[in-house]
Amino acid sequence: MKLSELAAALGATLHGDGEVEITGIAGIEHAVAGQVTFVSNKKYTSLARTTRASAILVEPDFPETSAATLRIADPYLAYARTIELFYQPPAYAPGIHPTAVIADSATIGERAHIGPYVVIGEKAVIGDDAILHPHVVIYPNVVAGKHFTAHAHAVVREHCRLGDNVILQNGAVVGADGFGFARTPEGWYKIVQSGPAILEDEVEIQANACIDRASIGETRIRRGAKVDNLVQVGHGSTVGENTLLCAQVGLAGSTDVGKNVILAGQVGVAGHCTIGDGAIATAQSGIPNDVAPGKTVSGYPAVDNRQWLRSVAVFNRLPDLIKGLRRG
Amino acid sequence: MKLSELAAALGATLHGDGEVEITGIAGIEHAVAGQVTFVSNKKYTSLARTTRASAILVEPDFPETSAATLRIADPYLAYARTIELFYQPPAYAPGIHPTAVIADSATIGERAHIGPYVVIGEKAVIGDDAILHPHVVIYPNVVAGKHFTAHAHAVVREHCRLGDNVILQNGAVVGADGFGFARTPEGWYKIVQSGPAILEDEVEIQANACIDRASIGETRIRRGAKVDNLVQVGHGSTVGENTLLCAQVGLAGSTDVGKNVILAGQVGVAGHCTIGDGAIATAQSGIPNDVAPGKTVSGYPAVDNRQWLRSVAVFNRLPDLIKGLRRG
Amino acid sequence: MKLSELAAALGATLHGDGEVEITGIAGIEHAVAGQVTFVSNKKYTSLARTTRASAILVEPDFPETSAATLRIADPYLAYARTIELFYQPPAYAPGIHPTAVIADSATIGERAHIGPYVVIGEKAVIGDDAILHPHVVIYPNVVAGKHFTAHAHAVVREHCRLGDNVILQNGAVVGADGFGFARTPEGWYKIVQSGPAILEDEVEIQANACIDRASIGETRIRRGAKVDNLVQVGHGSTVGENTLLCAQVGLAGSTDVGKNVILAGQVGVAGHCTIGDGAIATAQSGIPNDVAPGKTVSGYPAVDNRQWLRSVAVFNRLPDLIKGLRRG
Repeated sequence: MKLSELAAALGATLHGDGEVEITGIAGIEHAVAGQVTFVSNKKYTSLARTTRASAILVEPDFPETSAATLRIADPYLAYARTIELFYQPPAYAPGIHPTAVIADSATIGERAHIGPYVVIGEKAVIGDDAILHPHVVIYPNVVAGKHFTAHAHAVVREHCRLGDNVILQNGAVVGADGFGFARTPEGWYKIVQSGPAILEDEVEIQANACIDRASIGETRIRRGAKVDNLVQVGHGSTVGENTLLCAQVGLAGSTDVGKNVILAGQVGVAGHCTIGDGAIATAQSGIPNDVAPGKTVSGYPAVDNRQWLRSVAVFNRLPDLIKGLRRG
Repeated sequence: MKLSELAAALGATLHGDGEVEITGIAGIEHAVAGQVTFVSNKKYTSLARTTRASAILVEPDFPETSAATLRIADPYLAYARTIELFYQPPAYAPGIHPTAVIADSATIGERAHIGPYVVIGEKAVIGDDAILHPHVVIYPNVVAGKHFTAHAHAVVREHCRLGDNVILQNGAVVGADGFGFARTPEGWYKIVQSGPAILEDEVEIQANACIDRASIGETRIRRGAKVDNLVQVGHGSTVGENTLLCAQVGLAGSTDVGKNVILAGQVGVAGHCTIGDGAIATAQSGIPNDVAPGKTVSGYPAVDNRQWLRSVAVFNRLPDLIKGLRRG
Repeated sequence: MKLSELAAALGATLHGDGEVEITGIAGIEHAVAGQVTFVSNKKYTSLARTTRASAILVEPDFPETSAATLRIADPYLAYARTIELFYQPPAYAPGIHPTAVIADSATIGERAHIGPYVVIGEKAVIGDDAILHPHVVIYPNVVAGKHFTAHAHAVVREHCRLGDNVILQNGAVVGADGFGFARTPEGWYKIVQSGPAILEDEVEIQANACIDRASIGETRIRRGAKVDNLVQVGHGSTVGENTLLCAQVGLAGSTDVGKNVILAGQVGVAGHCTIGDGAIATAQSGIPNDVAPGKTVSGYPAVDNRQWLRSVAVFNRLPDLIKGLRRG
């Protein structure tokens, strides 16, 4: 693809030679001649001067560089769209593999691709344009919307409901039993987990993550939320719209996470907490209490991020400080 | 079901109108008319005054409320039993699906439900009343007791032994190789993991949790212990009776956890440690050493919980304290 | 096996009665008469005096004990080899199970064991002597080398490449989509993950661990690296030769971990960090920045291990120190 064609496809303004042939996209430090790269953050301006890429996706007011530039309001989104121009994931044609075991009472939408050894239980409903990879298991009474993609070994348990455009990566488990037990003199009594997990439209659950069903009521992941690998969402929790739960985050039971929240990797949130809209928790934070909307927290137990940074700075000098005080 | 019938079914004392029709159970803040709810902790007494539920499960000496009350010694257990009155999980009739691949030398007990694409290896023994969901894989020489339930994609590896009433949620892996390697000049030499993982009666392993087999000897989860999603139990570890390992807990190798222990979410325990009976570790604690029986620990590295809380309180004021000391 | 035969098989020097019959190997505290045990660390010398084992694998200059000794340069490696003399994992004969679904365009090497319900996609290539357990799913265009072992429910996604002698434990996911989204006014725009995950020779990925594919470029696990259960390797990361990632470690995206590194359990590393060759991070460390080669770090945020130990010691005395200062 010529650089001028790429500019046109993206709606970007080209500064430089449009005749250069572009063969792919790469990171700014790895890119070579013939590739396009991107700078979505001005602090990488210096790398833009030294990259071997033939062109750089940048914001409109980015300084001129020796490489050609494609100027566009959102270079990161343009980067995402450029990938699609150079790479197509495998396509899966409509059709139901003869080895799929589909209950007579189940309903499969139009144009579905149902792979080998998929199992779909009684009264399950799968919307149009589904792609179910090999070994996906849909338990009875599941309802899934349109454009449902489930990768190999994903599972959706009984009565769970999925909106449109839901994606499950490999090994994701939606609606397994919550961790609920009542103490008795004879040991723990298992509490039947009666409530479904519900994934609204545009939700993606990544590999081996677990969204538990609820003891009572429901567990709900709201529209557009994204859940990374190996995340634990405990029973009865709610995750708000467009919220990101990064890898290995854990929500205990009945946790209420607002919209546009970002919980970075390995963050843990205690049960019955409320995380306000737009809050951010930096990696590994341990959150024992409610977090106000818009707040950034860090640490264990988590506190205001700036306060934590100050305390950590002192913590790291504690031995010297103590010595100094004693001498003083 | 009339409220009076619910009271009778639970063995509870009814204060209020027994003729009210009860249609389900819900949390105290979400319950509506026609539903029963519960208060198992007196600090929620105030919510009992404002709930819209038609009836509340409470302890015998709970104050009167405007809603009817069902008085019983253990309201939380009554809550668990009430769920069962209003919700039945799907039932799975006895029978072996024609697609199950069962070795000739394997033995399956009476009344088993063996779902599609289950694979059972040579000489495996499965007790009576098993329910094996689709895609469960039982490796050779596994022995499982009565009432074994394994959800889709659960795996039990060679030679592992399971007691009665064991439950594996989806994707649980019992007996995969421990992380054992000997250093050599050419790289890491893999140590064959010869010892089985053993789950005693009433053990439940939840979704995508991993109970490794042992290098030598065994890994053992004792009677009634419950292991939550995404937990790691390292090779050669022991988990005591009725102990709870909450989500994402990690035990390194040869860890010995006593009985009635609770390790809250994301706790880590170093190898070769002993955690005494009845100990508790709060969420995210990192335990590098033995913990005495009955002790509650917190922090990283974990120390006595009250000591940790005091230190954390000071930590959070460190910048101000240092400033004050300098001024002083 | 007689003890003298064991000594000969290992190439060890025997001190003691070679006629004793040895029936197995056990840990030094659990071993009984007829078993061999090992001491790979001199601080356990005292246990060597009290063990009931009939023989002990020790270094050449180890003190004499009442038990017989087998003296050898690397007793831990000898321990590993001894296990192999007393325990054989199940063997799997060459052959392709009739239920395996293998694309016509796929290539399977000589002597492969392909278990029930394995699915192998279009144009995939599997090397000689592979053992694919039941329910393994190989997506299209995967290339795997010789002696590839994949346990039940392991998955390798499209275009990923595996070297020789790669082992995947149960539920391991290689090449699922990375967690990449571009923010737009309408919500998160999914970034196609175009780059494969690549596992070089001798790599082992343990149960339910996730090695994401890359947005662009590749994710690479270098020769001899070992990845424990439930580890997350984010998209575009690199893990160096012979590096160990212990259970539940998480690497965010574009993390570059050097060779011979050890990240202990539950360590987290932020995106775009470089961990130098030979570095060690103790359990639960949270690493926000680059780590120099050879350095040992601890804490959250991670700092030099010795500095951290000193700060922790003060942290644990903070309440008393503050009281003392006030009194002073």
